Amino acid sequence: MPSTKPLLLTNPTLASNIDIDHVTHFLLELDALKRINRRSYVTHTTRKENSAEHSWHLAMACWSIAEQFELDVNHEKLLKMALVHDLGEIDAGDTFLFANSRSEAHIEERAGIARLQAERGNGIMDLNEIWEEQETGSSKETQLIRVVDRLLPFLLNLNTNGKTWIDANITRSQVTAALAFIKDSFPSIHDWLSKNIDYATQQGWLVDA
Amino acid sequence: MPSTKPLLLTNPTLASNIDIDHVTHFLLELDALKRINRRSYVTHTTRKENSAEHSWHLAMACWSIAEQFELDVNHEKLLKMALVHDLGEIDAGDTFLFANSRSEAHIEERAGIARLQAERGNGIMDLNEIWEEQETGSSKETQLIRVVDRLLPFLLNLNTNGKTWIDANITRSQVTAALAFIKDSFPSIHDWLSKNIDYATQQGWLVDA
Repeated sequence: MPSTKPLLLTNPTLASNIDIDHVTHFLLELDALKRINRRSYVTHTTRKENSAEHSWHLAMACWSIAEQFELDVNHEKLLKMALVHDLGEIDAGDTFLFANSRSEAHIEERAGIARLQAERGNGIMDLNEIWEEQETGSSKETQLIRVVDRLLPFLLNLNTNGKTWIDANITRSQVTAALAFIKDSFPSIHDWLSKNIDYATQQGWLVDA
Repeated sequence: MPSTKPLLLTNPTLASNIDIDHVTHFLLELDALKRINRRSYVTHTTRKENSAEHSWHLAMACWSIAEQFELDVNHEKLLKMALVHDLGEIDAGDTFLFANSRSEAHIEERAGIARLQAERGNGIMDLNEIWEEQETGSSKETQLIRVVDRLLPFLLNLNTNGKTWIDANITRSQVTAALAFIKDSFPSIHDWLSKNIDYATQQGWLVDA
């Protein structure tokens, strides 16, 4: 750290009205996302990925892809949506892409977001709104997040010998259907996925059905 | 997911020049940050926190605190700096706050950032610059990140019965010195930390020296 003298960041009057115990309580609530395990494995490990590190990966991946493909998206909005997209899982847990309960998962997740929004130590006033947009919106930022949120677990599964797919007896047609929407929004990623669905099936990681 | 038809996000000419194998290679490089373990433990677990989930936590915490305290910071810049602040550890590893090698850690980390910057699949053209600003800059965003990057591991240590401090025989005066700079930039957080350094010492988690 350089020897520059730190400057005062806060407004003393405003700061005197905020209880740091509330702030740290909220930060500990957020810590819980690190305890929500997903189905995919982190590459070169035998452990499952958790939703906090996945959210970091998603934010980084969306940012890099948006810039490389010169997409017309707002980076602040994109990163905020990626950071909070799984926050509802703190109360609801993670739901596997191929689970029967998938279509109902958003109800509990939405309630979890509302609870966090209401925490006294939460400073993010538009948390509900940002989460809702990534969940049900149709902006370019939302659409990019949807593509990359499917690409990343596929990539991890492909690079951990298909363990997640094998464990759950996932078929080629299930994966093909779950990724079909990407053909319209991001054709070159869809082509890459299709090629690698073939590869994963040849390897016996996906059931050929 | 709603039934809205996805719109094309990409420019076909531009997209045809980008190899998705390069993009996914870069995304797998990023995955490595999930394998870098820090010294603190995730609350309610027996496992150490990794640098990817920590980076997510830092981004969320800086965002929430910046908004609650109405700080004059640019959110896009703040979030980008938080997301990449530990990326150099993919090559360099994590360095404990109280390690003797702490002052040299930035050299290897900077080289790691330069390597990632040069990856063909990396779209983040200002990665070096953003990392450098969080490392050596003096902007308000940089200063806030420095405060919160110290607050978070302190908070985790405090809420895991001081295990990290006990394991390394850390003293009250070491922690006090490492957090002293916060007195000038964020007095109310510094007051909270001081009070809890007393508490941790009373609990026997910090050596009273």
